[in-house]
Order: sequence, then structure tokens, then C-alpha cells
Amino acid sequence: MLTEIKPLIMAKQSASPSAAFDHETRLVEQDHHSIKLWLRLLTCSSMIENKLRTALRNEFDTTLPRFDFLAQLQRVPEGLTMGELSKRLMVSGGNVSGLATQLVKEGLVDRRALPDDRRTYMVKLTQKGERQFALMAARHEEWVIELLGSLELDDVERLSDLLAQVKATVAGAELK
Amino acid sequence: MLTEIKPLIMAKQSASPSAAFDHETRLVEQDHHSIKLWLRLLTCSSMIENKLRTALRNEFDTTLPRFDFLAQLQRVPEGLTMGELSKRLMVSGGNVSGLATQLVKEGLVDRRALPDDRRTYMVKLTQKGERQFALMAARHEEWVIELLGSLELDDVERLSDLLAQVKATVAGAELK
Repeated sequence: MLTEIKPLIMAKQSASPSAAFDHETRLVEQDHHSIKLWLRLLTCSSMIENKLRTALRNEFDTTLPRFDFLAQLQRVPEGLTMGELSKRLMVSGGNVSGLATQLVKEGLVDRRALPDDRRTYMVKLTQKGERQFALMAARHEEWVIELLGSLELDDVERLSDLLAQVKATVAGAELK
Repeated sequence: MLTEIKPLIMAKQSASPSAAFDHETRLVEQDHHSIKLWLRLLTCSSMIENKLRTALRNEFDTTLPRFDFLAQLQRVPEGLTMGELSKRLMVSGGNVSGLATQLVKEGLVDRRALPDDRRTYMVKLTQKGERQFALMAARHEEWVIELLGSLELDDVERLSDLLAQVKATVAGAELK
């Protein structure tokens, strides 16, 4: 009889939250489907961010916010104002400003006030910044393909379309 | 002739990146579909996080990491070790430890060493923590429903299934 009990207990354990612990672990059955969707979305993006963060640290001794900062600048050779950069990075101006100071010190980024508006600062990549970012960007692309490249192309398209809907819905919502 | 030129220029401007600036703004046409998917996923979760962050600050003068910390504990009345909590929050032990210290100071969380292993700390909500979290959780649920509740239920299900695939794929990938 005892031999039959053990598998039952193990089944119960593995049926609990899931094999891994993540944001979804806090869900309870009765949670609204919007909450379930949000915590799954957050789990996916946190998992990918954590893997990219670890790889960037191991291979380039750098951080994800620094990589994202350089990535936005690389796209715009003429440079961006700090305000534009902050919007694109979806973080506050204070965070962006601290990063800029570090990257200027390391010679990867050039920051200067606009001649006609001394309170507006413009940042752009230096040549050293461009070279260093190109190395990181190539690896970053390989990593993202390692993480997501095995999804079926059909599924990727469906997912992109659904996420575009999420984006539009969230952008239009005003929290009261 | 000049009147015909202006609409063309405006069309070109509004066709560029998109009305909003976000992580997807750094995409170029040739980027791999995995990169496009990743930046769209990141944009969606950052948008939702930013809206929730602002609402939590405005209404409760608190932060998202603090809310997430309390949310994980609320789920487990007997408490969690700091290590378990760190896994569930998907952040490093150092971050969790700093948050715990603040929350203990405010009387929301109780932290004590395990009697049989003095190096392992266990945290759980105090009664004050439970009360305070209940207020925040109710509003948080309303906010998430305001943000995502207008999506069709079919779409929510399809999206959840696709994100479950992403989660499984990413969990199994080892970056080299």
C-alpha cells in the first residue's frame, strides 16, 4: 500500500505552481484572466531579460540598460536629445542621465548642449562607441535568435499581431 | 505644385517608427523576426509596468518591486526563504535583501533566521503587511483589468498559449 502513496504525493508537488518559480507563482485559480495574462507576459519578458543580462555581463562585462542606451543611439547617427532617449528607453530622465555620465566617461558616448538651447543635451555614439556596440549587437542578435528562433514563423506572426493589439489597448488606457 | 509636396513629407514622417517612441523604435527593416518579436514583447511589458508603477506611486506612494515582493508573500502565509523569494521575483538576492530590510523597518514584513539553519532567513507578511497589501492588490487588479480587460477572450487565450510556448522555449535555451 505504501508504494502507491508516494507517486500521489509527488504528483501533487509537481502539479503545484509549476516546475519553475516565477511571477506566475503568485497566481491563484480565481485571478482574473487579465492578471494571468499580465503575469505570463511579465514572466516571459523577465526570463529573456535575465538571460540577455547574464550573457552581456559574462561576455562584455556590461549591463542591459547600457546596451539598450547604445542600441537606441546607433539607430540615429545625428544623435538624440536626452528627452527623446528617455522616451525610447521607456525609463525616467534621471536614470538615462546617470547612464549617459558613465558612458561619456568611458568614451563611448558624446554629450553636448544644443548651441541654441543650452538646457537641452544631445547625445550620440563616438567612433569607439560604434565599434564596441557593433560587437555587442551581433552577439545580442545571436542570443535572441537562440532564445526565440525555434518558434514557428506562423506562431511568431500571430504573437506579434496579438502583442500589437495589447500595445494599442494599453496605450489607449488611462488608469484612474 | 508646392501644395502637393507637403502631404508627401507628412506621410513620410508619420510612417516612420510609429506615433510613440519605445523599444521598437530601434528596429530596422532587416532585423531578424526574433528581434522584432522580442522588442515588441519588451515594449508591451514595459508599457504595462510603467502604468502600474505610476499608479502605485500616485495612490500608495510605493514602488512596483515592493508590491511584487508583498504579492509573493501574500500567497504563502507560512512565509518564504529569501532564496525562494528571489527566484519567484526573478531578481538577484541582493535586490531582495535590500527590499526586505525596508519592509521590515516599516512593519509590513517579519524576517527571522530558521531555528535549525541560522544562515537561512525566512520572511512573511505581518498583519499590518497583509492589510496594506490587500488594499493595493484590489486596486492593482482593477488597473490590470482597465489595461487589458478590453481584449477579446479568444485573443487572451491565444496569446496566453503562445506566451506559454515562448516561456517553454526560453526556459530550455542555454545561451553560448
